Amino acid sequence: MTDKPNPIAKAHRKYSSDRRTFLAGLGAAAGGAVLSGPTVSAKKGTPARNVVLVIPDGQSQSQVTAARYLKAYQDDPEAFPVNATPDETQLNVDRFDTMGTMTTMPDDVGETEWGGEYEGDFTGDELDNGFQNITDSAAAGTAMSTGTKTYNGAVGGVLDYDKGFVPVKTVLEKAREAGYATGLVTTTRLTHATPATFATHWPDRDHETEIARQYIEGPLWAEPDEEKVWVDVLLGGGGREFSDDLIDKAEDKYEYVTTQSDLEDVTEGPVLGLFSESHIPYTLDRGEETPSLSYMVEKAIELLRKKGPGKSQGFFLMVEAGRVDHKAHANDPSLPHEELEADEATGVALDYANSKGTQPTLVINAGDHETGGLQMGRDAYNVNMEFINEMEISLETLWPMVEDADNVEEVVTNNTPIESLTSEEISRIEDTKWYPNTQGFPSVVSEHANIGWGSCSHSGRELPIWASGPNAEYLAGANDNTDIYKAMAQALKL
Amino acid sequence: MTDKPNPIAKAHRKYSSDRRTFLAGLGAAAGGAVLSGPTVSAKKGTPARNVVLVIPDGQSQSQVTAARYLKAYQDDPEAFPVNATPDETQLNVDRFDTMGTMTTMPDDVGETEWGGEYEGDFTGDELDNGFQNITDSAAAGTAMSTGTKTYNGAVGGVLDYDKGFVPVKTVLEKAREAGYATGLVTTTRLTHATPATFATHWPDRDHETEIARQYIEGPLWAEPDEEKVWVDVLLGGGGREFSDDLIDKAEDKYEYVTTQSDLEDVTEGPVLGLFSESHIPYTLDRGEETPSLSYMVEKAIELLRKKGPGKSQGFFLMVEAGRVDHKAHANDPSLPHEELEADEATGVALDYANSKGTQPTLVINAGDHETGGLQMGRDAYNVNMEFINEMEISLETLWPMVEDADNVEEVVTNNTPIESLTSEEISRIEDTKWYPNTQGFPSVVSEHANIGWGSCSHSGRELPIWASGPNAEYLAGANDNTDIYKAMAQALKL
Repeated sequence: MTDKPNPIAKAHRKYSSDRRTFLAGLGAAAGGAVLSGPTVSAKKGTPARNVVLVIPDGQSQSQVTAARYLKAYQDDPEAFPVNATPDETQLNVDRFDTMGTMTTMPDDVGETEWGGEYEGDFTGDELDNGFQNITDSAAAGTAMSTGTKTYNGAVGGVLDYDKGFVPVKTVLEKAREAGYATGLVTTTRLTHATPATFATHWPDRDHETEIARQYIEGPLWAEPDEEKVWVDVLLGGGGREFSDDLIDKAEDKYEYVTTQSDLEDVTEGPVLGLFSESHIPYTLDRGEETPSLSYMVEKAIELLRKKGPGKSQGFFLMVEAGRVDHKAHANDPSLPHEELEADEATGVALDYANSKGTQPTLVINAGDHETGGLQMGRDAYNVNMEFINEMEISLETLWPMVEDADNVEEVVTNNTPIESLTSEEISRIEDTKWYPNTQGFPSVVSEHANIGWGSCSHSGRELPIWASGPNAEYLAGANDNTDIYKAMAQALKL
Repeated sequence: MTDKPNPIAKAHRKYSSDRRTFLAGLGAAAGGAVLSGPTVSAKKGTPARNVVLVIPDGQSQSQVTAARYLKAYQDDPEAFPVNATPDETQLNVDRFDTMGTMTTMPDDVGETEWGGEYEGDFTGDELDNGFQNITDSAAAGTAMSTGTKTYNGAVGGVLDYDKGFVPVKTVLEKAREAGYATGLVTTTRLTHATPATFATHWPDRDHETEIARQYIEGPLWAEPDEEKVWVDVLLGGGGREFSDDLIDKAEDKYEYVTTQSDLEDVTEGPVLGLFSESHIPYTLDRGEETPSLSYMVEKAIELLRKKGPGKSQGFFLMVEAGRVDHKAHANDPSLPHEELEADEATGVALDYANSKGTQPTLVINAGDHETGGLQMGRDAYNVNMEFINEMEISLETLWPMVEDADNVEEVVTNNTPIESLTSEEISRIEDTKWYPNTQGFPSVVSEHANIGWGSCSHSGRELPIWASGPNAEYLAGANDNTDIYKAMAQALKL
């Protein structure tokens, strides 16, 4: 970083010390007011009965290309690469009617100004991460769920100069209040940032047990109600964040399942499915009792169609393909496998929206930020799709075996398409600190795959948006991520 | 690379040796047949009087974001990043009516099959670059200019199994034959791959003096004609590729200019403007007698409106912002300055298309491939726009001074926003081999700017396309780069 004075950084530092002062006086009491996010004209827009928002976490056009390349290679390796055109290898994103782009930057803590009444137990220390102008999943999720910009780490709320953290009502909560059925489906922990921003509120994304509590007991800003269900379908990972007590409470309202077979047997909601203690395993690592994202989406739609206070009212469903981002953070060149699942799940939503008898359904696919700077090709005008296609285990799952190996080369060649390693590569692998690491084990494997990475982190790149169905045209052209909220809220007349 | 057999690579190797055999028998005679590229239905589509195709070389959505961030920061550093939304910081690409995406892969030399009569002096050695499935600018340019996939390095033609290199008639040449005025404007050498693919034909992009010859004497496949002008407006760099003899020939048909003032004085074409011996300097390095890309576009349109065999016929103009790609190859974090010029030039074309009295004009903006894996942000959720804004010289221009410096730190701190260097950074700079280099001088500067790079090369990422005017809707949704040709040819009824 330059040492010259940065006016923004200075403003931030000044603000940070101010913040410490006023936040020190805050009590720990929860409850109180909630903000409502930007108003959209309910008179404009085309009404939808249902909305499905698919968020492949970390998806930019590069990740989409990766999926198309893998699909084309799997279809016909001899014809690759010229069969990787949209005509010959269609992805589900190609089926959308409308496309646009969106910016994703967070607000920085020095600029957030809101009125409101809420006083939580927010000390401000959670924000001590320096000036940030590239979004994380919490700020990006909050932008899409509430239409408001916030600081990185914020779940469903903004920072008020005087009041601390203030919740903002989400599209899901408004939909529930208007009588729609609601659902959240993800391959991450359900308590992870992206799904959390749609139905819970907390100044710090890392407080996942609190997020779990709010899913079951209701959002922070709402009156406690032991019977009320806010999210009819909750499917994902994160079992470790739900205490036994909380599961007991959940079972008063929800059917609780933990396996694919159990989920198949569910015939009506509400349902809470926790299929893993932490995140749901990557597609390459998954066992048969772990449902695929596509199956979870199919089941969620089946249940949401039958469910909700007003059965004919329609539903709001958010689907996160959350682990595309994780593979990008890890610089794992098997990422295309994970993105392909995101595209398949998108296809399930589109199939439903396009099927005969379905009520008007707005389907949107949009990432929350780009991760990793994935490059298909790395200094050789050639990406090794045969290698990528043959990968059978994620690097994150493989790494503990490599780290503990007496013979690194044996473990690597037995578990990846690599046939041999140079002594320099073995040294780099042995020197690897798992994360973040742009030179170690993931980099060695990526070099074999001819995949490039820009970092282990997020970038500010504008992202593609695809939309079909009523009000899709709202998202044509250049947007900000807060426009995702506006398009959905307008379509559902919220 | 994996050592396992790769079926494609094997096919390529087999083909390569076959190719050596049949190509050995080829004579050196030029001339003969030309192919015509894919047929488009002239009955469909919306007719345009003019077409302007803007190609920011190496542009993906990431480069576009970079331009928006720089513009937003320059407009109001205190408000950055939240002022970098399309609402607050509009780019010219936001003004287009339609957007889509496109794939860009080249054909590989093992798969190209075409009929034709041409036998050139192509030995095949130029293709000895291994199997490539990520495009270069020549194959990408040829896809857009002719609607046909070809191998990397090919200029305006394809490889025939039996006949060697076969030219394919370009959209510019067809437009000229149909009576349109034609123009090529670029910030690279005019003889560089992208502009070359629109009006010349050669099996190897590196033969730039031959490309220069064809601009002046006519395309390879055409009957020699000392009076005929194929391209009415030729503006760019590359003076070194035009011999004195060739300039003499050019002056029989063209007004020949080499400075901004001379160009300003030109009142009608044809005009040949060569403003630099090699590429036109980067925006940051440019002197006042070097025209900006925006001015060249403005002048080109002014002259093309008056020019051409049929004065009311309209024109075809290709504009390349060619040095965005060069900064990405060099991993130079001042790239946003160069992309901003690309966007400004796009605005000139849109202003013309939208102005009162202008005949229907199709304007397209599309990159040819992504370069460098540019990431706005690098492991810190923060991109240092103050640093990027303060950069005043390109790294390529600065490098010889750094390389020769007795005191590296002094030269670097005097010529970049860096205030001091660590001894480790100084070592990395001193160890730098200029290109390709992902760890040396450009990497040190990029770390200060918090800019990430995936490689020094191209990637296969699908690219955004923007289009406005007649037939723009042809390019909505998912396309291949050959669709750019089809949209233009259809609009011009070629």
